[in-house]
Amino acid sequence: MRNFNKNKFKKLIEVSSGREKADLLIKNCKIVDVYNAEIYDGHIAIVDGIIAGVGEYEADKVIDACGAYASPGFIDAHIHIESSYLSPEELGRLIVPCGTTTIIADPHEIVNVCGLDGLDYMLEASKRTALDIKMMLPSCVPATNYEHAGAIIDASAMRRPIKNEAILGLGEFMDFVGVTNATDEVLDKLMTAYENDKIIDGHCPALSGNLLNTYVSAGITTDHECSTTKEMIEKIRRGMYVQLREGSACHDLENLLEGLTTMNSRRCLLCSDDRQPKTIFEKGHLNDHLRICVNKDLDPIIAIQMATLNVAECYRLYDRGAIAPGLRADIVLLDNLANFNVNRVFIAGQEVATKDKYLLPIEKYSINKVKGRMCVKDFSKDKLKFSLKTGDVNIIDILPGGVLTAKGKAKVEISEDGDFVYNSNEDIVKIAVVERHRNTGNVAVALIRGYGIKEGAIAISIAHDSHNIIVVGVNDDDMSLAVDKLIEQAGGIVLVKDSDVIASMPMEIGGIMSSKSGEWVSETLNMIHDLAHSELKVNEEIEPLMVLTFMSLAVIPEIKLTDMGLFDVNKMKFISVEIEKDI
Amino acid sequence: MRNFNKNKFKKLIEVSSGREKADLLIKNCKIVDVYNAEIYDGHIAIVDGIIAGVGEYEADKVIDACGAYASPGFIDAHIHIESSYLSPEELGRLIVPCGTTTIIADPHEIVNVCGLDGLDYMLEASKRTALDIKMMLPSCVPATNYEHAGAIIDASAMRRPIKNEAILGLGEFMDFVGVTNATDEVLDKLMTAYENDKIIDGHCPALSGNLLNTYVSAGITTDHECSTTKEMIEKIRRGMYVQLREGSACHDLENLLEGLTTMNSRRCLLCSDDRQPKTIFEKGHLNDHLRICVNKDLDPIIAIQMATLNVAECYRLYDRGAIAPGLRADIVLLDNLANFNVNRVFIAGQEVATKDKYLLPIEKYSINKVKGRMCVKDFSKDKLKFSLKTGDVNIIDILPGGVLTAKGKAKVEISEDGDFVYNSNEDIVKIAVVERHRNTGNVAVALIRGYGIKEGAIAISIAHDSHNIIVVGVNDDDMSLAVDKLIEQAGGIVLVKDSDVIASMPMEIGGIMSSKSGEWVSETLNMIHDLAHSELKVNEEIEPLMVLTFMSLAVIPEIKLTDMGLFDVNKMKFISVEIEKDI
Repeated sequence: MRNFNKNKFKKLIEVSSGREKADLLIKNCKIVDVYNAEIYDGHIAIVDGIIAGVGEYEADKVIDACGAYASPGFIDAHIHIESSYLSPEELGRLIVPCGTTTIIADPHEIVNVCGLDGLDYMLEASKRTALDIKMMLPSCVPATNYEHAGAIIDASAMRRPIKNEAILGLGEFMDFVGVTNATDEVLDKLMTAYENDKIIDGHCPALSGNLLNTYVSAGITTDHECSTTKEMIEKIRRGMYVQLREGSACHDLENLLEGLTTMNSRRCLLCSDDRQPKTIFEKGHLNDHLRICVNKDLDPIIAIQMATLNVAECYRLYDRGAIAPGLRADIVLLDNLANFNVNRVFIAGQEVATKDKYLLPIEKYSINKVKGRMCVKDFSKDKLKFSLKTGDVNIIDILPGGVLTAKGKAKVEISEDGDFVYNSNEDIVKIAVVERHRNTGNVAVALIRGYGIKEGAIAISIAHDSHNIIVVGVNDDDMSLAVDKLIEQAGGIVLVKDSDVIASMPMEIGGIMSSKSGEWVSETLNMIHDLAHSELKVNEEIEPLMVLTFMSLAVIPEIKLTDMGLFDVNKMKFISVEIEKDI
Repeated sequence: MRNFNKNKFKKLIEVSSGREKADLLIKNCKIVDVYNAEIYDGHIAIVDGIIAGVGEYEADKVIDACGAYASPGFIDAHIHIESSYLSPEELGRLIVPCGTTTIIADPHEIVNVCGLDGLDYMLEASKRTALDIKMMLPSCVPATNYEHAGAIIDASAMRRPIKNEAILGLGEFMDFVGVTNATDEVLDKLMTAYENDKIIDGHCPALSGNLLNTYVSAGITTDHECSTTKEMIEKIRRGMYVQLREGSACHDLENLLEGLTTMNSRRCLLCSDDRQPKTIFEKGHLNDHLRICVNKDLDPIIAIQMATLNVAECYRLYDRGAIAPGLRADIVLLDNLANFNVNRVFIAGQEVATKDKYLLPIEKYSINKVKGRMCVKDFSKDKLKFSLKTGDVNIIDILPGGVLTAKGKAKVEISEDGDFVYNSNEDIVKIAVVERHRNTGNVAVALIRGYGIKEGAIAISIAHDSHNIIVVGVNDDDMSLAVDKLIEQAGGIVLVKDSDVIASMPMEIGGIMSSKSGEWVSETLNMIHDLAHSELKVNEEIEPLMVLTFMSLAVIPEIKLTDMGLFDVNKMKFISVEIEKDI
């Protein structure tokens, strides 16, 4: 609750009563009252980072809002910082000028790579941005038992970090099968949250009926995986807070707004899940969510509630979410409630951004503890060879959207020693996953169709959820060169053509985030995308990097490749590349 | 949060999934979904007192609701158990059949009399009813420094009890002057709540503008003292939860419903403040509040939210307030959402009431520690004498409503030794307050006009907030007899006429609550009221007991009598009965 001493407390009352001057007065605002869902004119008095009140006050410093709308600062209910490819400090620099003052972040990507060192890094880095980053403790590391991640965070490993005041709760509980089956390990994990009175985020796409009852009865409170309004109503009915997602990858918001009513909107929250720099530069952050809402004729204040009050209530952040006495002075001044263009942003009473510009100096936390996470044993080109006998193979067929795949079949040409022979008339290439956390030396190879690549190779170290190395290419030389270069640069992305590196983006933070600026990352990614299409001839219909990042995601059907082999998601077992004949 | 062990947790999931049978299935309900504000048909499965889910389930026991409406059990957001004149167990017996399953109780009456012994008694007694009683720690004991109460609970005395898990927060902070002036003692009290992450209830009638900002900035979250809708909107605007009060004494609900909107209703709660047995028998409890709402054309589910979900959210009771998986099985079956007649009530999955009948056996907690609180030193008839010189006196003028008084003047006849001479043609009589907690021997005497009494005397030991003895009468003999008898019976109410006790109601629990049944208390009070009017000729326009209980309440203007003397509330100082001449 309150974190101040008696003197500050007394000071707050003295200022609120008008007996002492405030530090800051933001005058002439149209204030968004999120409780009554009304707008009223007023001046906001602030002392020691806290709102003393709206009324007639004197202050040491006065800022004239000139009739701008004053909203509580926006709160992103669910986001993975790592999916921006940026450090926390850098993401803060980009999204604070969009009016975002708090985010609820689940660092499962970096914890999958670096374990609790990753969590520590994120917590420390988060202190170095004005953005208030509330951190969840990842609940599913590793995501499945069908891959090697950089860490195993079981219930006993959770017991200390969950007590950390800086940890808000347990991150999205993706193992809904484990929950609904009440597996022992899952119960232990959930109990750590209960014993410490912490909230548990959820992740339960398409769960309904008694299975959904089960998931919710386990104490899981939120979900961001609704695709239909029917799902949304069902989840709200059971007491879940539904997070309407609008990110760089997934765009559910507009569709789900159909399910919103004046009755249930207060159990709905806005979230990104992921937000890439390019999207932030072109559209913004939560201010863009709000624009989308208002363009669908939603009352702007109902929309704002979903990015402020409702999120604060859900996550028990009693000190924010509205402009009211005693709450944190997290305030965004907006031109109007249609375009939501941001004028100025205050966090804890400090002016932190004006139009598009983050104002504070940034001193980033050292990345030493999360760098160089390339523990690859004995990788060589030979590990990319197949030993096929017939050439009748199971194949990964990319589906539109790039996340789901189909389990296809093909007959491919094989060399004398059983290796795959690339045929440029057919869109089938090798794909490999190289384990990079535990020096296992694991390399799994398979074939993929629909990627389009006709030259060279692409290697990346962002591959949900374990973030091993994924490489795809038309020949083993380029593929192995790409992997070698990737390891050398401590992870990220490498494009190779004809034995040359034609583009690369190092991602030194665990091999999944860059320590550079959002502008640089955005431009570099643009360039890499362009070159992937223009030089390597990757299929124009697909997003070359995003597709690869999902080819290891063993929870999404039908067939994926992990460092342990080719995995049939529906049957939940590994299969060989070569189709085995029935005897 | 969750209070169960791993085995129970696993069991819940097993039942919720349908793999194991529930304990109880309440089938064929029209379920009130308080999140979407919709009704849907379903069967409620319950195990170990928790809702496993709504769906198709099997159970050891099946109850057919036959299409009754299933609502979450009602939660009274603010009530003083003592104002019912009943023990907690007995109040539970009366209100549970009205559909109330939780109450938020502020025991400041009994703590004013018995100190922390009173709190302990209330906590223990509360365990012996199925009604779930959440207790607040009284914040203003004594209510003012202008009277002697039975205890002083300052910040240091609060430090231990506030940590008790059974204490939900700090009770209504009536000393809003102290808050807005940031007095040291008040800051210390409020800090005890913050340091223990506990909520603080408020009480700030007619506070507005910067003063209201100040009160709220101090972290006070609720208020039940709104008289106008303007006040209500202002308080909601500042983040307060507004409790719409409908009790035996105060009837604000219907008026305040005018200020309710679909936008702000989720920050509004229903409460009683007080509820006498007679009212409960004639009208019910929160089911009557709901009736009133619906009769004013409020959507019944919006009304129900104000007695369920909203209260649970406000008081951070995450385990109740809706019919949803994982929540307490506190369920009330209603005939319909117009008359709210109660069919059956379940608390933590146990059937505790059917139409009008509490089902469980009652074994009351011993009242020994809170009995016999009559520590009156050297009371005698002589202490009722005045020593007046002129007969020009300040007088307490009763105003309609019976709570406020006016500071009046009169010229009265005095005897040779300066005592007041009663004149049956004038409606002026003696009133006295006899200190009964600390053996001070204090007796303060004054004159009151408008009470109407023409015979005998009435003495009571319920006198807000310190609950000293108040006695009024036409002659000293009857007055002192009434006081003596009151002391003898360990408090309550005594009516005397012509040296005989014509009626009495002992209230052995601290002199403010009866240990008998609600029916007996109601009948006895009826009889006492009738006799007060018919035999003692108390003014028919006023409620004889209620008026007396407010004549000591030194926070309500204009002029009141405490054990320390006649008190001018507006000037906040004691005055003499005799009007002092200017020199």
